[in-house]
Amino acid sequence: MCRWLSYRGPAIYLEELLYEPKHSLIDQSLHALEAKTPTNGDGFGVGWFGARKTPGTYHEILPAWNDANLKSLAHQIQSTNFFAHVRASTGTATSRANCHPFSYRNWMFMHNGQVGEYHKLRRALESRIPDELYIERKGTTDSEAIFFMMLGNGLEDDPVRAANKTLGQVVDMMEAAGITAPFRMTSVFSDGERYYALRFSTDDRPPSLYYCDEKERLILVSEPLDSETSSWKTVPPSTMLMVDEAGKVELQPLTLQ
Amino acid sequence: MCRWLSYRGPAIYLEELLYEPKHSLIDQSLHALEAKTPTNGDGFGVGWFGARKTPGTYHEILPAWNDANLKSLAHQIQSTNFFAHVRASTGTATSRANCHPFSYRNWMFMHNGQVGEYHKLRRALESRIPDELYIERKGTTDSEAIFFMMLGNGLEDDPVRAANKTLGQVVDMMEAAGITAPFRMTSVFSDGERYYALRFSTDDRPPSLYYCDEKERLILVSEPLDSETSSWKTVPPSTMLMVDEAGKVELQPLTLQ
Amino acid sequence: MCRWLSYRGPAIYLEELLYEPKHSLIDQSLHALEAKTPTNGDGFGVGWFGARKTPGTYHEILPAWNDANLKSLAHQIQSTNFFAHVRASTGTATSRANCHPFSYRNWMFMHNGQVGEYHKLRRALESRIPDELYIERKGTTDSEAIFFMMLGNGLEDDPVRAANKTLGQVVDMMEAAGITAPFRMTSVFSDGERYYALRFSTDDRPPSLYYCDEKERLILVSEPLDSETSSWKTVPPSTMLMVDEAGKVELQPLTLQ
Amino acid sequence: MCRWLSYRGPAIYLEELLYEPKHSLIDQSLHALEAKTPTNGDGFGVGWFGARKTPGTYHEILPAWNDANLKSLAHQIQSTNFFAHVRASTGTATSRANCHPFSYRNWMFMHNGQVGEYHKLRRALESRIPDELYIERKGTTDSEAIFFMMLGNGLEDDPVRAANKTLGQVVDMMEAAGITAPFRMTSVFSDGERYYALRFSTDDRPPSLYYCDEKERLILVSEPLDSETSSWKTVPPSTMLMVDEAGKVELQPLTLQ
Repeated sequence: MCRWLSYRGPAIYLEELLYEPKHSLIDQSLHALEAKTPTNGDGFGVGWFGARKTPGTYHEILPAWNDANLKSLAHQIQSTNFFAHVRASTGTATSRANCHPFSYRNWMFMHNGQVGEYHKLRRALESRIPDELYIERKGTTDSEAIFFMMLGNGLEDDPVRAANKTLGQVVDMMEAAGITAPFRMTSVFSDGERYYALRFSTDDRPPSLYYCDEKERLILVSEPLDSETSSWKTVPPSTMLMVDEAGKVELQPLTLQ
Repeated sequence: MCRWLSYRGPAIYLEELLYEPKHSLIDQSLHALEAKTPTNGDGFGVGWFGARKTPGTYHEILPAWNDANLKSLAHQIQSTNFFAHVRASTGTATSRANCHPFSYRNWMFMHNGQVGEYHKLRRALESRIPDELYIERKGTTDSEAIFFMMLGNGLEDDPVRAANKTLGQVVDMMEAAGITAPFRMTSVFSDGERYYALRFSTDDRPPSLYYCDEKERLILVSEPLDSETSSWKTVPPSTMLMVDEAGKVELQPLTLQ
Repeated sequence: MCRWLSYRGPAIYLEELLYEPKHSLIDQSLHALEAKTPTNGDGFGVGWFGARKTPGTYHEILPAWNDANLKSLAHQIQSTNFFAHVRASTGTATSRANCHPFSYRNWMFMHNGQVGEYHKLRRALESRIPDELYIERKGTTDSEAIFFMMLGNGLEDDPVRAANKTLGQVVDMMEAAGITAPFRMTSVFSDGERYYALRFSTDDRPPSLYYCDEKERLILVSEPLDSETSSWKTVPPSTMLMVDEAGKVELQPLTLQ
Repeated sequence: MCRWLSYRGPAIYLEELLYEPKHSLIDQSLHALEAKTPTNGDGFGVGWFGARKTPGTYHEILPAWNDANLKSLAHQIQSTNFFAHVRASTGTATSRANCHPFSYRNWMFMHNGQVGEYHKLRRALESRIPDELYIERKGTTDSEAIFFMMLGNGLEDDPVRAANKTLGQVVDMMEAAGITAPFRMTSVFSDGERYYALRFSTDDRPPSLYYCDEKERLILVSEPLDSETSSWKTVPPSTMLMVDEAGKVELQPLTLQ
């Protein structure tokens, strides 16, 4: 289980959300409250959309809480749309290639959760990744596999359909493999313009996911950044959050295929 | 604050103490119970006496809990006298040079605790390190400075006197600098034959230090490795533990000079 | 292209071959003479057979030439059979999981060379890895894929046959994929008792491989460790080197299947 | 010996100088032509002035040539004034704290060269660093010590005087210590507005330093980035380069005090 944060809105410095809040993501890397484990120290990553078509990324295998590079980057970099992730490995190695966010062309993706008994399903998941994407697979996580499955399922054309289709495929494959452990997932993905997040589980315990939608700012977090709980709303289970053309946040049920 | 463990006795594999106990040092790197913070993820190190005159050392800036190298080394290496340390930085950087144990020639030293307001005293502490040792200083911690002060105070000739003298000097320097924050310390040091540990504080809250002395095995730990508390004894405050010529564990009060 | 070294014989300290010779493997990490590039700084690894059934391993993403851990380990560890490898990436990431030697149970393997246009063949190679081994795949290199293919082809039962069969499969798959870039490879693999090495290429430029067989010591190297060229013999192309039951070094042609 | 590059002019992406030229700084990290050693793989760093008062920095202990973070940052970040440095250690450890550029408040500094027999002089150099700066010393290099000496000598008020005074002090201290090995140095330092560089040696072999001053762009490099040597001019020995109020590059002799 991991902790993550994503922002969409007027340009702000990354540090405003990564470091400044009382229960900032950096604080959550040591003291997560709503995760299985309080410590998320198996690497981290940030990704941000700036002046370029593709997002910038910085991944590191050290814990986030003491990383001077992250501190400097978060002080310097402004973005209208960024992702940040602190990792608690559920079995795979601590390597940069296993750190979120993952990116491909202009798409960025990150994830918290777990495919139950992933070691039994890794090969099947990977088999759904098209050849031209497979050669881009750099790590060994279930998260990156799901991202490439989504890309293979048409993420660039119809993100909602691709996400629903991918979730459905994973659920089917788990059933086929006789896996009863749950598939739990929160995720966010964006191409810098379109923006989506989802919360899902095959059991009744999806990972936590909150959002705050105020003053043109949309913030998504695994855990609230402060105790002003009034401003944080829960993303309901089996729900996709998206921003419509008018910039309005919209929630709709997932419809697995 | 950090957590550490030291062993002296018949040769055992390092993993027997580092990994196997329920509340092993590796477990303490994530879930310390008697420290200010449960997480000790700012690097780690092991040192061991083997067939060579000088101890072997392995230091790493990653957290210990997921380090495959440490796991393999601890499975392979046997020793009659070894040190292991998981670090929680109290301000200085995460670098190999700041990871314990420190070694010089055939001496090895590690430490838990803190010199109060060290940033005000660093230069003064370093001024007590003799020239020929100063060029060996690789990091920036108070711990390494204290080790080199002890060497400068005759550690190789009279370890007990050198330790007492060094503690006295630090206390005096803190007073001279008007520092009222406490100086707290547990430490162990050995040349592979002689073996010493100490527990000290200028206030009434020295860091925890336990020992288990059974069947020719002496184990020193920041926290007990299991819940069989009967076998773990507390090293009293202001006390030095040492092993006499007959191999018997002896406790005596510190006598700061 | 990488540089490697392997030893089999009476127990010696690793440093005797890693550091002490004029053109030691550490020197080769900066100044390789017979490789495409002089620098092999994309991580390194050592593996050794000791008192345990499985080999010990130490992998690091830093260059070998300045690694204090490696220096200390090589000074401390003795072995009758060890591998060491300095890596120059041919495209895949610098991560511990991509550093040689690879190990599985009691087998250890390392490799120098390249499967031509590997990015086109990675999926096909991986498809030949049996399920129970596939979940052990931690990196993304062709080298690790070949090792697991060899294991799947019966390495533990008949190493010579497994190696020949695997090479044949790779050659066939490259042909099927229309790849004309060469497949070049030197490799060594051992379970601590049995010991094999091979030199192969689909063109007439296999990577260099030398051996020195004197006084019960067998040393295999990508490049000679010193200029006493008299003692270094070339392993001929398309040849497998093995040690027979009487401890005698034997060379025999590869017979791809 | 190291290689470095610095830019001052209209905002450009860092990659334009770090990656795109034929003999870019990244190429120089593997294939330096005018340095003692071709390989500069003991860590690297970049620093840049952006929208903030203090410069951003990114330091890493891995070689620059394969660092995906650097590649992404250099693609994203634009700056009117940036520094980049690839390191070849002359003895001190590979750690982030020893990687250039160094920064303090709004000043940034980097360096190539060496104080002869630095191990004999380290303590003396450090003794010239004022207390309030000494606590900021994070590494162990001569480079960082010289930067803090310059700050102590009034860098913020009169950079030219501070540099000359510091060089003079180092020379005097070396003489007093009976050191005959040369003190060689190229350096650049800036607060984002004022901009200075210098080339110096106590013998007749100062490290190479070139500049290109065209179309409002000032580029300083240890080695030319391409073979169009016509555009690269040598900074003469014992010379300080500076940009005057009108933006014009000016050279003047160093006047050690």
